[in-house]
Amino acid sequence: MASGKINVSVENIFPLIKKFLYSDHEIFLRELISNATDATLKLKHLTSIGEAAVEYGNPKIEIKIDKEGKKLHIIDQGLGMTMGEVEKYINQIAFSGAEEFLEKYKDTAKDSGVIGHFGLGFYSAFMVASKVEIITKSFKDEPAAHWICDGSPEFSLESHSKTERGTEIILHIADDSLEFLEESKISGLLNKYNKFMPIPIQFGTKKEALPKPENAADDYKTEYIDVDNIINNPNPAWTKQPSDLTTEDYTNFYRELYPTQFEEPLFNIHLNVDYPFNLTGILYFPKLAADLQIQKDKIQLYQNQVFVTDNVEGIVPEFLTMLKGVIDSPDIPLNVSRSYLQADGNVKKISNYITRKVSDKLKSLFNENREDFESKWNDIKIVLEYGMLSEAKFYEKAGDFVLYPTTDGKFYTLAELKEALAANQTDKDGKLVVLYASNQDAQHSYIDIAKEKGYQVLVLDSPIVSHLIQKLEADNENLTFARVDADHIDKLIAKEETQISKLSEEEKEQLKTTLEAIVPKEKYAVQLEAMDSNAAPFMITQPEFMRRMKEMSQSGGGGMFGMGNFPEMYNLVVNTNSELATSILATENQETKDSLVKQALDLAKLSQGLLKGEELTSFVKRNFESLK
Amino acid sequence: MASGKINVSVENIFPLIKKFLYSDHEIFLRELISNATDATLKLKHLTSIGEAAVEYGNPKIEIKIDKEGKKLHIIDQGLGMTMGEVEKYINQIAFSGAEEFLEKYKDTAKDSGVIGHFGLGFYSAFMVASKVEIITKSFKDEPAAHWICDGSPEFSLESHSKTERGTEIILHIADDSLEFLEESKISGLLNKYNKFMPIPIQFGTKKEALPKPENAADDYKTEYIDVDNIINNPNPAWTKQPSDLTTEDYTNFYRELYPTQFEEPLFNIHLNVDYPFNLTGILYFPKLAADLQIQKDKIQLYQNQVFVTDNVEGIVPEFLTMLKGVIDSPDIPLNVSRSYLQADGNVKKISNYITRKVSDKLKSLFNENREDFESKWNDIKIVLEYGMLSEAKFYEKAGDFVLYPTTDGKFYTLAELKEALAANQTDKDGKLVVLYASNQDAQHSYIDIAKEKGYQVLVLDSPIVSHLIQKLEADNENLTFARVDADHIDKLIAKEETQISKLSEEEKEQLKTTLEAIVPKEKYAVQLEAMDSNAAPFMITQPEFMRRMKEMSQSGGGGMFGMGNFPEMYNLVVNTNSELATSILATENQETKDSLVKQALDLAKLSQGLLKGEELTSFVKRNFESLK
Repeated sequence: MASGKINVSVENIFPLIKKFLYSDHEIFLRELISNATDATLKLKHLTSIGEAAVEYGNPKIEIKIDKEGKKLHIIDQGLGMTMGEVEKYINQIAFSGAEEFLEKYKDTAKDSGVIGHFGLGFYSAFMVASKVEIITKSFKDEPAAHWICDGSPEFSLESHSKTERGTEIILHIADDSLEFLEESKISGLLNKYNKFMPIPIQFGTKKEALPKPENAADDYKTEYIDVDNIINNPNPAWTKQPSDLTTEDYTNFYRELYPTQFEEPLFNIHLNVDYPFNLTGILYFPKLAADLQIQKDKIQLYQNQVFVTDNVEGIVPEFLTMLKGVIDSPDIPLNVSRSYLQADGNVKKISNYITRKVSDKLKSLFNENREDFESKWNDIKIVLEYGMLSEAKFYEKAGDFVLYPTTDGKFYTLAELKEALAANQTDKDGKLVVLYASNQDAQHSYIDIAKEKGYQVLVLDSPIVSHLIQKLEADNENLTFARVDADHIDKLIAKEETQISKLSEEEKEQLKTTLEAIVPKEKYAVQLEAMDSNAAPFMITQPEFMRRMKEMSQSGGGGMFGMGNFPEMYNLVVNTNSELATSILATENQETKDSLVKQALDLAKLSQGLLKGEELTSFVKRNFESLK
Repeated sequence: MASGKINVSVENIFPLIKKFLYSDHEIFLRELISNATDATLKLKHLTSIGEAAVEYGNPKIEIKIDKEGKKLHIIDQGLGMTMGEVEKYINQIAFSGAEEFLEKYKDTAKDSGVIGHFGLGFYSAFMVASKVEIITKSFKDEPAAHWICDGSPEFSLESHSKTERGTEIILHIADDSLEFLEESKISGLLNKYNKFMPIPIQFGTKKEALPKPENAADDYKTEYIDVDNIINNPNPAWTKQPSDLTTEDYTNFYRELYPTQFEEPLFNIHLNVDYPFNLTGILYFPKLAADLQIQKDKIQLYQNQVFVTDNVEGIVPEFLTMLKGVIDSPDIPLNVSRSYLQADGNVKKISNYITRKVSDKLKSLFNENREDFESKWNDIKIVLEYGMLSEAKFYEKAGDFVLYPTTDGKFYTLAELKEALAANQTDKDGKLVVLYASNQDAQHSYIDIAKEKGYQVLVLDSPIVSHLIQKLEADNENLTFARVDADHIDKLIAKEETQISKLSEEEKEQLKTTLEAIVPKEKYAVQLEAMDSNAAPFMITQPEFMRRMKEMSQSGGGGMFGMGNFPEMYNLVVNTNSELATSILATENQETKDSLVKQALDLAKLSQGLLKGEELTSFVKRNFESLK
């Protein structure tokens, strides 16, 4: 039996770095700036504990493009490296200096902010550069070093005349990566990955107006000077304590995150926990966009202020991916599969923590200023309703703040709703019937009828509402929902008293026969009702159960299989106590009778939005005729 | 000056493989089966050129789960490895045996089908396994080898008693990856990545019915036996010659690709080119789904029959990403940034080739069976119209097959349309006016009016149609499009003859004053027209230009900035020659006059879909009243 050690040769690894390290080559810039940041933070730590006898000052990181020379420079003022350190840290692929540092200074460096390795760090430079130079001067009293490697993988190392402390990385950009010499490209990357990193990052200069001198002449022209263009905010709001921030601070930070967003956020939730996992962040409830898809993936994930991704699937509960904002946690594993993420204990705890913080915040907003909360309801309801359907823990808490608005502009919690409707809307079997409309415009006439009876009508117009009410009915005994156009109102909420019919049974039979001869059977089932004589003579209704199952099936999940494709089913409710019913019975002439019924049916169809196309054209023509 | 060679240590690389190699750990199975396939194809090649004196036979690759032992086995019957070869190929990370093989046998192996390396190949096993074993027996007369490595990175290597030719890889699945011991998971992965690989892959067994014996008794019960469950089709349709395939073959392959798809594809385009790049594939025009988003990303990209991705963005022209099917090309660079992909010469050529093949196919379908092509138009138009707008090369060819359907079920090409309408629909300024409707139902009454004049009306109902007609107008002199409800028909196509007005100028003035006092000014501009006395007395129109700009702005791109939010603008066209106009003038009683105008306005609003909510409810009530 033989044994040994697996071998890896640099000749084989180098091409792999270039090809496979990250599918996004642009990551190299994030890696190099993370290294520069660490070099600076390490120096800060060493000066603070007295191990580096130099002035820390106000160090920055500078990015420079040399388009003609096809070079990109990343320059820091951190602790630098001696020749010996270059040998040790650079000539060994994938050796993490950050881990060594944290290990060595573990007692003091815990909060130093050192970012640590994201990957191969420095070597990711070879994804875009054909040749890389390092010119570095340590804070120690040793000569600077100059390292050059063209990825062959031979390198050269010699001393250098550099005297300022810090490291300069020079990338000789490869021909297939020339895009990284474009100012707009680099500016875009800095804005994406480094916008909130903890050390100021300078990219070129910008013009700044000089203050107008006191003794300026009338024709004084503003003078400008060039100042450093700092692209990042080293102290973003989420790294601060909630108690140190005003509402305006939160709104301003929202603008920083989404500069092209016109709307202000509705409210924010500041996340801040360090046990059993470390997580900070700010989530915002945005104003609702028309397209929910577009709204997704707007939460940005950071690790120690370095942007990682805007795909937080698996980390944030799905219903909250419609929110915006920032999450920063070193405890979320990167580059792992979604199923691993779902199984990870920390990630599960993070997701639960976020759900709890969101429901706590909603509850306190509701309690502190209910009027304001109600005014925001329309923008937040879809998130909350979706949360009730998808997260059991959220559903449990929803009773405290989820609202049910009425057509009259009232907002009830479920408990309040039950209490408010109990007296008037409990039917003879003891069921509390909640009436609702999905579209106030389209169901206007039906809402009118319900209101005339003194009933309240909810406005439930989210696309997932049929699923939600199905769940509410299942979880609340003796509670039932019915859309206002699901039946004649006296049937929707059946009381003991019954209307007396003006028509005899015989007359009713005759009326029904007459109507069924004229009204298309395959579309409408004729249903005679003794109603108030002033009520609409003809009305078209659509039974609740079938319609709801169809809707559930269409909006995905629930309902019964294939019901989405069932034809629409309607009833034609005819008020036997209406004058029109009497007239139809009394009319002898068949043509007159036909046109009476036809006009009445058309009017009923109009109310239900069913009169269209050719039928509508001929209705309009006929009624223009009768106007002459 | 010093120089030297960069060093890489296995201790540092191993954890990186696990963490960073691929964000999808599941890829390991694709890698190992690719290796097994290559081992088999290499043997096939060596036997074919006489360098391996063994029987090739009917080799397969077997995948076995040992759930209790927490092991996954991948077993092939390929050329195997000697102890020496294991030393050489396995103990050296990232050494590609495939490249060496292709180099060595470059004269003969070009078409051997060897897949080559996707990445770190074998070592990707360590993404999911804590320990890996290889048991391998070469086709050469040497003892089998047994290699074990727990990723430490120490390994052991000894001889083994295995006598059958081939390699068995045993993965001891790590605790964070136990999902890969689930039959459903592995079955899903095989189906995703390996469904069309060229060597049969066996995963477990399945029951197969034995044929009923001829002399079977009446109560004969079907008997079943266990047979190998082969999960792949080693010879998928796209690898064959178009001339060897029937329409049914293409439809069957569509079913193989999309087993849950009920609809049949409309037609297919077989891609087959080997110079200047290598590409095969079959694209299908599917029946159009309601949600265009869902439709995207259905084209699968393969390399040498190995599934790579279903994101073909940048490779296939965007308008064709709504198609379905398969593209197989070794010439598409993987794991590169989108911008690199766009700049890559081969990729650009591939995209152009696909566009050209699609337009050629459409042209030949149109020429071969126009009737059939017309019947499919509604399902393909959105793709073609989008292509006209987004690809100049496609737009140039579109004249040959893009159709313009009429409300009467005719289909014209642009050239035919011009010819057919020239005589009747050219206005007095020599402009050819093409009338169109975006919704036959909603614009029914306006279509009716146009047809009564003998005009033809197109049905253009795609969401991007306003952009398309804008482009057609720009590119075709004296061609203009107008929606049927954009104005009164005699204005839309103005001819020399004018209608004589029954009303005097004074009466017109009086009528206008009367109407403007009743009709809300901020919503409707009153426009008096002398029309046929039988034409509609009131009609609401919406000017073409504003509406089109609004639509363009709303559907993204084009139009003028911010126009999407402009209010709707309507005209109320009143026919001064109608009896109603005369009646309104003649009516003394103001109340009667008001109700006449109100009813007429409501009827006009109904035709334009503008009578809603409370207005509609009161219209219906009022008209029920008048029925009594």
